[in-house]
Amino acid sequence: MRVLGVDPGLTRCGLGVVDGRPGRATMVAVGVVRTPSDGPAGERLVYLEQQLGGWLDRFEPDVVAVERVFADVNVASVMTTAHATAIALLTAAKRGIPVHFHTPTEVKAAVTGSGRAEKAQVTTMVTRILSLSQAPRPADAADALALAICHLWRGAAEGRLTDLARAARR
Amino acid sequence: MRVLGVDPGLTRCGLGVVDGRPGRATMVAVGVVRTPSDGPAGERLVYLEQQLGGWLDRFEPDVVAVERVFADVNVASVMTTAHATAIALLTAAKRGIPVHFHTPTEVKAAVTGSGRAEKAQVTTMVTRILSLSQAPRPADAADALALAICHLWRGAAEGRLTDLARAARR
Repeated sequence: MRVLGVDPGLTRCGLGVVDGRPGRATMVAVGVVRTPSDGPAGERLVYLEQQLGGWLDRFEPDVVAVERVFADVNVASVMTTAHATAIALLTAAKRGIPVHFHTPTEVKAAVTGSGRAEKAQVTTMVTRILSLSQAPRPADAADALALAICHLWRGAAEGRLTDLARAARR
Repeated sequence: MRVLGVDPGLTRCGLGVVDGRPGRATMVAVGVVRTPSDGPAGERLVYLEQQLGGWLDRFEPDVVAVERVFADVNVASVMTTAHATAIALLTAAKRGIPVHFHTPTEVKAAVTGSGRAEKAQVTTMVTRILSLSQAPRPADAADALALAICHLWRGAAEGRLTDLARAARR
């Protein structure tokens, strides 16, 4: 399965493509889409849609994994994050690619074993899991890869739970 | 000047087109785009983009006025509202149409004279200002018209302030 992880944002939108299956994960691509923070909001969204569409068309992921953001932090940044999330949903839906959301806690737990891990620990584990020679930069890029790994890992865990539940009913 | 007012939402997105100038306002069109609340998020955004794009192409407004939403209310509804707002920004930017935001307080003040007016009072004044034979329904449609009127009214007020400032400098 191929997953495109998206760490949504307008100033920096992290993107990471990972191929994997239970216990395996290989990085295919990583990058960041940047738009000028003083640019017109609409034009920034148009640019993000173009770039994100380009990644979807080039890497053809089976699923897109996006960070689920809560409105308990800075109001202004939550709004632009929500706008970027909408563009991810829109561009994926236009191509018939399903989108799944994962909370920061789920992502941290998936790659470090603890939902309360520090950001640096997540980056360290992403680098280790993907056998990268150096840590992905900036943090948004590492977060996007962590999201993709989380989706592969959790999907596997949920699959196993389904199997166990099925076995228990027999 | 022609303004498309947008009361952003995914379950109901109010749209109202108003032609006007200082002290004048004529309704051109009013409506609501609805998407099923249990539908996939991405598909709802694709549909909203199509419908909103259709309104922009058909009525060719000079400007789009959108309600500025704050994250101090229900978190889940703020997120879907932000997604709808992103679609409004995107579709307008693609057509080179500027988007302006107005707060609920600004809208209420513009059409009723009080920023703390009740919703029913806003609907009453929208109906009166536009000389409609009956109140626009649902509330989202009336709100979209109020937004468009607000933009025409405030734009005029800001224009007058600019004129006064210019005159004072002479």
